[in-house]
Amino acid sequence: MFYHDRQLQYKVRVEKPNPEFAKLLQQAIGGVEGEIRVCLQYLFQAWNSRGPQKYRDMLLETGTEEISHIEMLATAVALNLEGASTALKEKMAASNPLVESVLGGKDPRHILSAGLGAMAADSNGVPFNGSWIVSSGNIAADMHANVYAEATGRVLATRLWEMTDDPGMKDMLSFLIARDTMHQNQWMAVLEDLGNVHPIPNSFPQSQENQQFNYTFVSTNINQEPSPHTRWTEGPSVDGKGTFTFMHAEPMGGMPDLSKPDPLTHAQTEQMVGREIPMADKSFIEKAKDVISGK
Amino acid sequence: MFYHDRQLQYKVRVEKPNPEFAKLLQQAIGGVEGEIRVCLQYLFQAWNSRGPQKYRDMLLETGTEEISHIEMLATAVALNLEGASTALKEKMAASNPLVESVLGGKDPRHILSAGLGAMAADSNGVPFNGSWIVSSGNIAADMHANVYAEATGRVLATRLWEMTDDPGMKDMLSFLIARDTMHQNQWMAVLEDLGNVHPIPNSFPQSQENQQFNYTFVSTNINQEPSPHTRWTEGPSVDGKGTFTFMHAEPMGGMPDLSKPDPLTHAQTEQMVGREIPMADKSFIEKAKDVISGK
Amino acid sequence: MFYHDRQLQYKVRVEKPNPEFAKLLQQAIGGVEGEIRVCLQYLFQAWNSRGPQKYRDMLLETGTEEISHIEMLATAVALNLEGASTALKEKMAASNPLVESVLGGKDPRHILSAGLGAMAADSNGVPFNGSWIVSSGNIAADMHANVYAEATGRVLATRLWEMTDDPGMKDMLSFLIARDTMHQNQWMAVLEDLGNVHPIPNSFPQSQENQQFNYTFVSTNINQEPSPHTRWTEGPSVDGKGTFTFMHAEPMGGMPDLSKPDPLTHAQTEQMVGREIPMADKSFIEKAKDVISGK
Amino acid sequence: MFYHDRQLQYKVRVEKPNPEFAKLLQQAIGGVEGEIRVCLQYLFQAWNSRGPQKYRDMLLETGTEEISHIEMLATAVALNLEGASTALKEKMAASNPLVESVLGGKDPRHILSAGLGAMAADSNGVPFNGSWIVSSGNIAADMHANVYAEATGRVLATRLWEMTDDPGMKDMLSFLIARDTMHQNQWMAVLEDLGNVHPIPNSFPQSQENQQFNYTFVSTNINQEPSPHTRWTEGPSVDGKGTFTFMHAEPMGGMPDLSKPDPLTHAQTEQMVGREIPMADKSFIEKAKDVISGK
Amino acid sequence: MFYHDRQLQYKVRVEKPNPEFAKLLQQAIGGVEGEIRVCLQYLFQAWNSRGPQKYRDMLLETGTEEISHIEMLATAVALNLEGASTALKEKMAASNPLVESVLGGKDPRHILSAGLGAMAADSNGVPFNGSWIVSSGNIAADMHANVYAEATGRVLATRLWEMTDDPGMKDMLSFLIARDTMHQNQWMAVLEDLGNVHPIPNSFPQSQENQQFNYTFVSTNINQEPSPHTRWTEGPSVDGKGTFTFMHAEPMGGMPDLSKPDPLTHAQTEQMVGREIPMADKSFIEKAKDVISGK
Amino acid sequence: MFYHDRQLQYKVRVEKPNPEFAKLLQQAIGGVEGEIRVCLQYLFQAWNSRGPQKYRDMLLETGTEEISHIEMLATAVALNLEGASTALKEKMAASNPLVESVLGGKDPRHILSAGLGAMAADSNGVPFNGSWIVSSGNIAADMHANVYAEATGRVLATRLWEMTDDPGMKDMLSFLIARDTMHQNQWMAVLEDLGNVHPIPNSFPQSQENQQFNYTFVSTNINQEPSPHTRWTEGPSVDGKGTFTFMHAEPMGGMPDLSKPDPLTHAQTEQMVGREIPMADKSFIEKAKDVISGK
Repeated sequence: MFYHDRQLQYKVRVEKPNPEFAKLLQQAIGGVEGEIRVCLQYLFQAWNSRGPQKYRDMLLETGTEEISHIEMLATAVALNLEGASTALKEKMAASNPLVESVLGGKDPRHILSAGLGAMAADSNGVPFNGSWIVSSGNIAADMHANVYAEATGRVLATRLWEMTDDPGMKDMLSFLIARDTMHQNQWMAVLEDLGNVHPIPNSFPQSQENQQFNYTFVSTNINQEPSPHTRWTEGPSVDGKGTFTFMHAEPMGGMPDLSKPDPLTHAQTEQMVGREIPMADKSFIEKAKDVISGK
Repeated sequence: MFYHDRQLQYKVRVEKPNPEFAKLLQQAIGGVEGEIRVCLQYLFQAWNSRGPQKYRDMLLETGTEEISHIEMLATAVALNLEGASTALKEKMAASNPLVESVLGGKDPRHILSAGLGAMAADSNGVPFNGSWIVSSGNIAADMHANVYAEATGRVLATRLWEMTDDPGMKDMLSFLIARDTMHQNQWMAVLEDLGNVHPIPNSFPQSQENQQFNYTFVSTNINQEPSPHTRWTEGPSVDGKGTFTFMHAEPMGGMPDLSKPDPLTHAQTEQMVGREIPMADKSFIEKAKDVISGK
Repeated sequence: MFYHDRQLQYKVRVEKPNPEFAKLLQQAIGGVEGEIRVCLQYLFQAWNSRGPQKYRDMLLETGTEEISHIEMLATAVALNLEGASTALKEKMAASNPLVESVLGGKDPRHILSAGLGAMAADSNGVPFNGSWIVSSGNIAADMHANVYAEATGRVLATRLWEMTDDPGMKDMLSFLIARDTMHQNQWMAVLEDLGNVHPIPNSFPQSQENQQFNYTFVSTNINQEPSPHTRWTEGPSVDGKGTFTFMHAEPMGGMPDLSKPDPLTHAQTEQMVGREIPMADKSFIEKAKDVISGK
Repeated sequence: MFYHDRQLQYKVRVEKPNPEFAKLLQQAIGGVEGEIRVCLQYLFQAWNSRGPQKYRDMLLETGTEEISHIEMLATAVALNLEGASTALKEKMAASNPLVESVLGGKDPRHILSAGLGAMAADSNGVPFNGSWIVSSGNIAADMHANVYAEATGRVLATRLWEMTDDPGMKDMLSFLIARDTMHQNQWMAVLEDLGNVHPIPNSFPQSQENQQFNYTFVSTNINQEPSPHTRWTEGPSVDGKGTFTFMHAEPMGGMPDLSKPDPLTHAQTEQMVGREIPMADKSFIEKAKDVISGK
Repeated sequence: MFYHDRQLQYKVRVEKPNPEFAKLLQQAIGGVEGEIRVCLQYLFQAWNSRGPQKYRDMLLETGTEEISHIEMLATAVALNLEGASTALKEKMAASNPLVESVLGGKDPRHILSAGLGAMAADSNGVPFNGSWIVSSGNIAADMHANVYAEATGRVLATRLWEMTDDPGMKDMLSFLIARDTMHQNQWMAVLEDLGNVHPIPNSFPQSQENQQFNYTFVSTNINQEPSPHTRWTEGPSVDGKGTFTFMHAEPMGGMPDLSKPDPLTHAQTEQMVGREIPMADKSFIEKAKDVISGK
Repeated sequence: MFYHDRQLQYKVRVEKPNPEFAKLLQQAIGGVEGEIRVCLQYLFQAWNSRGPQKYRDMLLETGTEEISHIEMLATAVALNLEGASTALKEKMAASNPLVESVLGGKDPRHILSAGLGAMAADSNGVPFNGSWIVSSGNIAADMHANVYAEATGRVLATRLWEMTDDPGMKDMLSFLIARDTMHQNQWMAVLEDLGNVHPIPNSFPQSQENQQFNYTFVSTNINQEPSPHTRWTEGPSVDGKGTFTFMHAEPMGGMPDLSKPDPLTHAQTEQMVGREIPMADKSFIEKAKDVISGK
């Protein structure tokens, strides 16, 4: 279960409110790279955790920390919006041919829907979506999802860091960037701790997978260029269980062959009549229609 | 640009059509772990690729291969649905108290919307969503997204493999599982090829990130339990650039302090009046209202 | 900021795992009436809170409690799924014409995507959506959103209570139903505490709203039936600021009159030529096309 | 069934077209606070209505009125967009370093997709979503959903009113604000008419809910601060059926205990091996793998 | 503006309630082929209509009729659900190994969320989505969207007709199928009335489109098979403005050439270093990092 | 299966990068009128194709060509974004009261999420959605969906053509506009080839549809205006199988009559008590509650 403190995990100061930056910060709250995503992802992984307790514990810790990060960013959005609606109204009154775009770069819903507060949405106002939460039941797959989430999260945070000159915002972001560094390391530490994890899942017997294509790079290049001699086309595989080879793609599956449409699905009559009948022979089609309609 | 062959990459046979399995296969087509996702993800990464050409080439190759996998799975869905609508109608006629659920486990839209064909949706009929496509502009972040996608994709494929006894389906899945093995290895090979990639992005100067919290495990456990002595709480960090430490969470940010609502956002008057005024003092509120309404 | 305890807020026991009930429980996790919604809704309202501190405090408390409810329900889903995949596989082997629907009533993604764990989705597998989070900046509007959320949440919980005979599940639900009772009361207590809140927002001067239609019931019934003499068609209004009246709908706005299409939007030429020109006069249309194409 | 008149319910005039305001108006059409939502919500509640006829009648009336409001707003959007594409093209030709943002604040799809017309989307272009429609089968829950919808709807309308100086738009909005006043009152009148409605649903026997927690405020504050002595922590409950009390949160549910992963879900082997086995004992893991793969 | 009658447009009877059929009917309400879609589509096209009045009038008429169809289908869903929850509870009590799937084929939200009523969702519970509404500003494009909508709508209705033996449901569907026949004809009649509409839009000067590829079938077949001599590879084009020809696809665009990543986007350093530098030359990379980090 | 060439189908040049135009181009990639939609739509129609082989072949060809168009547009987006982040940062430093909106008209995720690359989203950042893919199993319905898709696609492309003066972009768009001309013609050629296709589906016996309403225009106009004498209210129907007539809408279905709520759904008690009991008789309601709660 969960508790809170009324204080923030780390300080959030905004020297000069900037509603455009508030819009950018939304990506770090409700975007696919954002904190709601990692928060719920780690918590669901913890709650669904089966196997050694230490992994559940760790996931619960960091999932809980991420709630505090959503809180920090939501506070940062609210502070960046202070004064925005009055400023906007004044600007609309003063608008002239040179500066017509008074709303540009701002999220209109920050005023219209949220009254100068944060939302569970990304920087384009697209709502957070639960489909982004990864909790597969396989801990190695989940750890890769987590490394990816922290990698794109840290990329996002560094881009936000570049987009502001506000010292309070830069300080807050340098804290969040540091936490992303830690969390990337943390999920990689679990993978190291788990040992030989690849190919994921490692509980499926590899003898059951097709042995001809499990370590082969397939080139679909129509010009049939030779192997580029890269790390992924020759030499031992990274998982240490095979050897990379290179081949040109070729069709091995033949032509697909579906039956004619089931009359109950009401395709066009011409589809049911089939291949061998010339489409011009309408009398045949009429007969088929009779059969279908029960005459 | 792109070309096609009318033949399939690998053979797709279904001995005994099974509309319930068709529903399960949809997860591998339009689900978050499915082939539309990886196909578009690798292609967008290729098209957006900046930097060494060999990475663009590789992404284009494998993105193209994945189109062929969507095709195989779509064909498998269509074959598993053959005869389904007639069977369903017959069963509805014969339904009795013991077996009333004739539709259960089937996707109704396979008949209603697709006429016994595949759809761009998951196993619950939830449509494919473009927000799942990761192409961040940072190749190391993208590679982790790809390893994760192939890890959950292979987990999904092994689960599907368990859920069927149809030899044709098992054969097709053993091919796809093999390809997932290769692709996991392939993206890890790129990470190895890139060298020292962590923390991602490696182009942000770590001196700018908060130095106190970039290698520290923060425990939010209310019982302040001691460090569990795990790989992620002590010893060298996995990226080789720091040392893991352990601390108990504590608030460093103080209380957030937002200003009173901007009158133009039309919060309740009582919110604007503020903290220090007793709510019972209605005359004050009335005065505030006068101010707001311009009297 | 936030902390956790490894123990649950209230006990979660499942005597007989039931994957169909696990599917139903998802509605209470990731559905529009579910706990992720109220959790994030109350927390965002707290984080965006402007005005008296006591409201922010209260929202933060209850938002934090709701995280513990998601945790309880996620645990309940996981426990109800125990053994499900093995049972399913055995049933598939034994399937016969009488009992063909082995998957019916179960969420296939509980196995395929979550490995027998909970998901951030509703009982049809539709993902949680951030657009459901209400935090308007007006505390009275927010409190009504909260009463509604707890009302549909409690309706949902009582329906789930009816759908199970498992004593552990009934006990857990009777706890959650009790909390919904409290939370409904709690948000109503805030409304009472705020005093005279209607019409919301009460900071907009009512003198600015149209005075003819602010307390009038408009009947759109084509048969022009007389007033039904109900609470909402006569007598004093509930907010105490007007008197209900009754009228039959009638058009007061005249015909809308849009101009012809802007040529740059490339409507059909016939739309641009306008009303007064007979469509048959193709030579005119040809001339119009010439103008458009700059001849 | 339904009829129409070619005239509008209320006049819609735009003195000076403003494509930025057209974008804002979209929130009132296709946003979560908008008219499509309330229109479909009241109509579905009417169509699903079970119980006294007078409620169905009333819902049908107001649901029908709301269609006329969508029509008014769509007309307002179209009028605000008149001339927009030509103006935009001219501005692009004249763009200079000082005024580069020619599109800022405008919805690009108003030109690209709708040809200067309204869309079923919000002010960020996010499409209307059917999940917002509340029709629970419980009339008291539905009425609270309706009060909330009209409360956020009126808040939105007053914010739009502040954002424009166009007298035609201000007049139209003052009509819509008045209707929201009426509709808030109307749904509250139904709640008053229903009598003692709380806790919702009132048809569930309260004796079945947990008696210890149905009127208790649970504080999750880690600092265990004392009761704040507010309306919601002491005194009679608002529903008149209990007494508010205050307690500090404490875990009553013990540790959750999930079983090891089902082998068929293909978790990592290390998860299945369990807690008591040192991860380093790889030979054990290898044996587990043999069991899983049927050797 | 709009009016209603309390009676239905056409009779809706259900002899034997069937919750599985209620689930199927949802596709015709909130699915992409359903009545909410065509209703809002025709109304938005009317409200956005620019050009001859007769088209606006016609769209308004039929858009209004479609509201009555949603009403009929919602009523049909509610009637098919009567008794469903009691039946379900009894079945759960009697469940045995042979008939375990008591929920299969039913929409759980029909009970949990809607209390045995209809929802604004499709047959898988996926919510209606406003992105399906087509109103392009070009009347010919819109008419094609409408013919398509009525075509898939009628296909859906005939499939539903096949799935039921209830005479009341068959009668209602035969009415809706008839209306779809009319509406298909109606939109085609507009296209005929408009005259020479192709290519759409006909207001763009065809002299501005690439003249080499506007009537050429491009074959991407890797085997370079000869022209199949079909209606679409030779002979006059259907719009009467060109002649179909046939060619094999070939790349005319050269290699795409993007610049190196902008340092501010924080790609990996290795991407910025560029093509010509061997990845192994780490000292160079280190230098690049120094530049980036401002050393 | 599929192959690729590293070269583009047609040249993509950008003389002066313009991030605002990059945002507009997104509509043609991930919007409902865009290339991902038609690409997947034609491919799914091909893969699900039942009936004459020539239709499958054609769909596969054009579906494959559309992948090349996504590629071209993604490249165009990336080229239009070159230099954008540096320019933005410089502008932010120089921002002044006259030019405050530095982000306006740009998609913030082009920098934040995609690192100056293209995304699978529309011009408002709303993700591509799989629900847009039409593959109904009826080839005539599918062809109308395709004509509609190419019609709105060509309308979009001409609008984009108007919005740019960059010669490279105009050239690329004139190629895409030409291809849309061809594809519109191509799908119409299939309809011509199929012969007498209406009403769709033509395999449902028209004798089973309601004979009174299948060729009648229903006017919902409350003023009962006479027939407008248009192509769709009189004369032979377009499908040649009926004669258009005109009627005024009238209710034929009587009042809907749903039963009282099922107690297990926990409606309010007052709904269950029913119509004939005065709401004021609370003692009756109390008795009803006793019955429900089992006293």
